[in-house]
Amino acid sequence: VQHAETTRLEAFSDGIFAIAITLLILEVRAPEAHDARELTRALQAQWPSYTGYILSFLIIGVMWANHSHIFRLIKRADHMIGMINLVLMMTIAFLPYPTSVLARNAGDPATRGPATLFYSASILVTAIPWSLLWMHALRAGLVDAPDDERDRMTASFRFGWLPWLGTTLIAIVAPTLSLAGIALLTLYWMLFPGRHRRPQGGR
Amino acid sequence: VQHAETTRLEAFSDGIFAIAITLLILEVRAPEAHDARELTRALQAQWPSYTGYILSFLIIGVMWANHSHIFRLIKRADHMIGMINLVLMMTIAFLPYPTSVLARNAGDPATRGPATLFYSASILVTAIPWSLLWMHALRAGLVDAPDDERDRMTASFRFGWLPWLGTTLIAIVAPTLSLAGIALLTLYWMLFPGRHRRPQGGR
Amino acid sequence: VQHAETTRLEAFSDGIFAIAITLLILEVRAPEAHDARELTRALQAQWPSYTGYILSFLIIGVMWANHSHIFRLIKRADHMIGMINLVLMMTIAFLPYPTSVLARNAGDPATRGPATLFYSASILVTAIPWSLLWMHALRAGLVDAPDDERDRMTASFRFGWLPWLGTTLIAIVAPTLSLAGIALLTLYWMLFPGRHRRPQGGR
Amino acid sequence: VQHAETTRLEAFSDGIFAIAITLLILEVRAPEAHDARELTRALQAQWPSYTGYILSFLIIGVMWANHSHIFRLIKRADHMIGMINLVLMMTIAFLPYPTSVLARNAGDPATRGPATLFYSASILVTAIPWSLLWMHALRAGLVDAPDDERDRMTASFRFGWLPWLGTTLIAIVAPTLSLAGIALLTLYWMLFPGRHRRPQGGR
Repeated sequence: VQHAETTRLEAFSDGIFAIAITLLILEVRAPEAHDARELTRALQAQWPSYTGYILSFLIIGVMWANHSHIFRLIKRADHMIGMINLVLMMTIAFLPYPTSVLARNAGDPATRGPATLFYSASILVTAIPWSLLWMHALRAGLVDAPDDERDRMTASFRFGWLPWLGTTLIAIVAPTLSLAGIALLTLYWMLFPGRHRRPQGGR
Repeated sequence: VQHAETTRLEAFSDGIFAIAITLLILEVRAPEAHDARELTRALQAQWPSYTGYILSFLIIGVMWANHSHIFRLIKRADHMIGMINLVLMMTIAFLPYPTSVLARNAGDPATRGPATLFYSASILVTAIPWSLLWMHALRAGLVDAPDDERDRMTASFRFGWLPWLGTTLIAIVAPTLSLAGIALLTLYWMLFPGRHRRPQGGR
Repeated sequence: VQHAETTRLEAFSDGIFAIAITLLILEVRAPEAHDARELTRALQAQWPSYTGYILSFLIIGVMWANHSHIFRLIKRADHMIGMINLVLMMTIAFLPYPTSVLARNAGDPATRGPATLFYSASILVTAIPWSLLWMHALRAGLVDAPDDERDRMTASFRFGWLPWLGTTLIAIVAPTLSLAGIALLTLYWMLFPGRHRRPQGGR
Repeated sequence: VQHAETTRLEAFSDGIFAIAITLLILEVRAPEAHDARELTRALQAQWPSYTGYILSFLIIGVMWANHSHIFRLIKRADHMIGMINLVLMMTIAFLPYPTSVLARNAGDPATRGPATLFYSASILVTAIPWSLLWMHALRAGLVDAPDDERDRMTASFRFGWLPWLGTTLIAIVAPTLSLAGIALLTLYWMLFPGRHRRPQGGR
């Protein structure tokens, strides 16, 4: 088995993160309007697009920060890491699509439900390759980190997907509450990056 | 608190800057035409799109140069720098959208007003994360720069948003004048990058 | 003849790979729907788009891993390597287009045939610059690798395009079988990257 | 005046080159078709789009190779280099738009004329910032190259735009001939990168 430096893998991933996050704005379409008042209203009426943009930008951004953090601990890469990372990138680069579906439907109570469910489920799905990535890196001996950091990360991957399962289930009955939950979770990850990595009863 | 090198943060930001600036051309749509004369006229009629492209390309480009400059002074990054930088990137990657709104409406006196206001306000909003980034870096001791350079930068962030507030307020009553002001400000930043960083009465 | 490091060539290629792979999601368009049931069905009806996205994402991703591997063996670049690499990038950056054609037609038996043929042939075409790249690097003495690795790579480029010729020919008579073949080939490359590089009777 | 390494400037430019070149495929739209024969014909009928894609991909690619070459000779960057480079990037990132205009009109004799003129003129315009970049780098003492290489580059920038002026003038009377000229020029630059850099009667 061949172990390579992770440099080019990180550059490739950074590129995908940067592009996926920047493509989000392409989903917000400039409205047609014939006078000033109509244009002002049309710009205001696009709040679901703005909300989707902000939410997905921050979610993908937090995932990028997480990716950076993990690859400071994973010192070498084998072929399998590259392939799991590819699947992870596939689920992350998919997110502009559910964002677009959410943006088009969040303002309409009749379709808000399945749009939110699809959006939350798409985030939940990313948890699978995230966990596989860490589990494989641990087992293949590619991680170079202090024991407590390692344990924190493992706990984080073991339970980190549970809140997203929560927002996905809630989306079935209460989409607005689910969206609020997604926003709060994102804000929490932005403000307290280390806290959730500590295992119960940890130091 | 963990301090990391800023390398990957800069690569991620460079990617977003490069993509946001290159996406601008996607907003300029090839016109339909049935004979040579019609095509020539249609290409000329798209001057608002060309203007929007040039203006936003240069504005985002100057912001990139500014970002490069700041991160030569910020030697290390903590989690908060990453998160403020993410919000900054969110406001910059948003700019192709107001550019598209401006391009569609700058040629029409009836809607030029709110389009220019929206455009100028979007630039103004970027000033908030710019200032937060510098203030946090200063307070967290992440800046490594000579005192006078530091003071110049602080003065620049304290007053640098005022001209954009000016063009935003002017846009309400005189959109064309506001656009001229935005163009002049951008040209000024391109030609005199250091001047505005010097505090009043500085050396 | 001037020999340069391959660093910037790899960075440029990484960028193109990352963008081509991330643009794939732009081909999946958010559907219009007026109630929850209609939206759910519309999201399910887009399975050809999802299939195309997953297939092309993995194919381009495997090509990226291959590119990384080759440029670990090619230590220096001359002008011709740069130009062959440019043609290679041209054939890879083209793939989002046949993917889009496939996604629009894979669900319709009447047009599935030529869409699959076009898709498979587009992948087959990439084999030409791939082989030229390796042959030129060998002849110009730019490869720095152990003999058996070199032989494995040469055998891989000599015969690696044959399976894609197979799926292209099959597409003429049995498009669904051809798509299954493309999927299996991609999975095989993801799981057994080294095996096919070993020449017949190799160690 | 502050002199910085050109690393981040090159990374930013590489990003823009990679994105501009990859966006070209977005201009090729998957056709609608109802049976196999119609789809096959529709795919063939898009030859102007394929031609535009190939031509512009190779032109931007050659420009990238040129940019790489120049920045191996320019060792340090000042603010003015950054700003001229920004204008250069603005003219290069513009090229997907005239490519799109060309692709839509190259197949129609009625509008081929102005489309080719616009395309060729857009390439010609890039010569201005290219020359300014080199002239400024020379004058500001940022170039570190042997005398004959320096002279070759200067001659190249002094006369390199003349062929593009030729294809632009020819486009007014004979667009097809102009396109053939553009294709030949691009092929010439791909195959003989060094020849045109040698001054008349060179070493």
